[in-house]
Amino acid sequence: MSTRPARSGVTARVLDVLGAFTASAPALALSDIARRSGLPLTTAHRLVGELTAGRALERGEDGRYRIGLRLWEIAHLAPASSGLRETAMPFLEDLHEVTRHNVQLAVLDQDDPAEVVYVERLSTRDAVSIVSRSGSRLPSTATAVGLALLAHATPDDVERVLARPLRRFTPYTVCEPDGVRALLARARASGFVVSDRQIEAVSLSVAAPVRGGDGPVVAALSVVVPADGTNPHTWVPAVRAAARGISRALGHPAAGSGSGTGTS
Amino acid sequence: MSTRPARSGVTARVLDVLGAFTASAPALALSDIARRSGLPLTTAHRLVGELTAGRALERGEDGRYRIGLRLWEIAHLAPASSGLRETAMPFLEDLHEVTRHNVQLAVLDQDDPAEVVYVERLSTRDAVSIVSRSGSRLPSTATAVGLALLAHATPDDVERVLARPLRRFTPYTVCEPDGVRALLARARASGFVVSDRQIEAVSLSVAAPVRGGDGPVVAALSVVVPADGTNPHTWVPAVRAAARGISRALGHPAAGSGSGTGTS
Repeated sequence: MSTRPARSGVTARVLDVLGAFTASAPALALSDIARRSGLPLTTAHRLVGELTAGRALERGEDGRYRIGLRLWEIAHLAPASSGLRETAMPFLEDLHEVTRHNVQLAVLDQDDPAEVVYVERLSTRDAVSIVSRSGSRLPSTATAVGLALLAHATPDDVERVLARPLRRFTPYTVCEPDGVRALLARARASGFVVSDRQIEAVSLSVAAPVRGGDGPVVAALSVVVPADGTNPHTWVPAVRAAARGISRALGHPAAGSGSGTGTS
Repeated sequence: MSTRPARSGVTARVLDVLGAFTASAPALALSDIARRSGLPLTTAHRLVGELTAGRALERGEDGRYRIGLRLWEIAHLAPASSGLRETAMPFLEDLHEVTRHNVQLAVLDQDDPAEVVYVERLSTRDAVSIVSRSGSRLPSTATAVGLALLAHATPDDVERVLARPLRRFTPYTVCEPDGVRALLARARASGFVVSDRQIEAVSLSVAAPVRGGDGPVVAALSVVVPADGTNPHTWVPAVRAAARGISRALGHPAAGSGSGTGTS
């Protein structure tokens, strides 16, 4: 975020304070916030006080600060959350009920297409364990949702992602640019993606792209199933049908035909 | 929010800009943001530019601004969202699957206990229509979740809520303080709440409180069903069981007994 010229001054410091909170550290003491945001303690103290007064932060009985309910209410208005996620939920629930496996909805980080952000995950207590959580990130090249999204990104974005080293999670993670390009070509041709044990050796995921009302791919959904020898193509029709249902609900006119032909 | 003394300066203005976005206006032109936040256009222009550079806002192809994915990622760390909501989701899904009606999870606004904030809603395409959405608010006195929460609030908070006029939604909305006090007493004694056609004349809701790991009530969940003559008590066991399941998952030690006795 520091590479952007217009970002400076108090606004940037306010966002630095908020950005100090992470999934692994959602509750922070004032000194933690100062250290993580790189701000002097006095500055952090003043900003945290103002953010708490404005209810963007909350101070718990343990003296530590957390993200406030008021900020959550506002941020929930992000298109990925209140538009996409809420439209998709009934379809995610249907898919989850039919498959009884983890179902995920993700979007590409427009500023860094090397990563996908999970906006929803439906899980069951007995489903195969998975790494992703709602609000978390994973590399787009190693996940079925990420490959489904990258398959419809611009060639420039794809090459930007492939120019950097690709992280290996398992012996099955595809880390060679040409291997990823082949997966993307197959995704465009078929309308779905199977990511085989790339994140965890015990599971694979099957994804399909979701199109917005004006045509382009805006999200992808996947089901994560055990890599137990079951043919992953078993899950493809249900995943594609759910993705098309969400596209139609988002107002995509051609969701009734040809969404797998990669014509966008 | 303007009654809090520590809130001033740039931080307050940044929060005013973010607070200009609402569920009914999630995409705003710069002039709308200036008007809604009460800021001069030049100030709004500068802050919006800085917030966009920091990815707290996003500018769409239509030139309008929306809440950015980066702010959503951070705000998703709010305890009501990433802790409570994620822990509750499997139980909400089970209840939703069993009832096939709208299932909701809500928390009391600690700064204004007259309102509840819905942190999740699971709905089906054929369920009875309801007003609430994830991220939206309703009066705590007119909703089953709100009554379940107020029943365990401090007497001061309850009287503060009842000191103000209570909004009427339907002929069945309880707007008299003594009527609300009677509902709260019944909620404490029974461990559940039935709110009968108080928000919409076609539906009623059944709620039970959720307790956190350290004992106090932290949330409430409800199912919203058609007011079609079915005995609402049909739904009570499933709602109470789900609420106890969430309490247990949150670490509440006594969730195995006596959660309906109001001993907190």
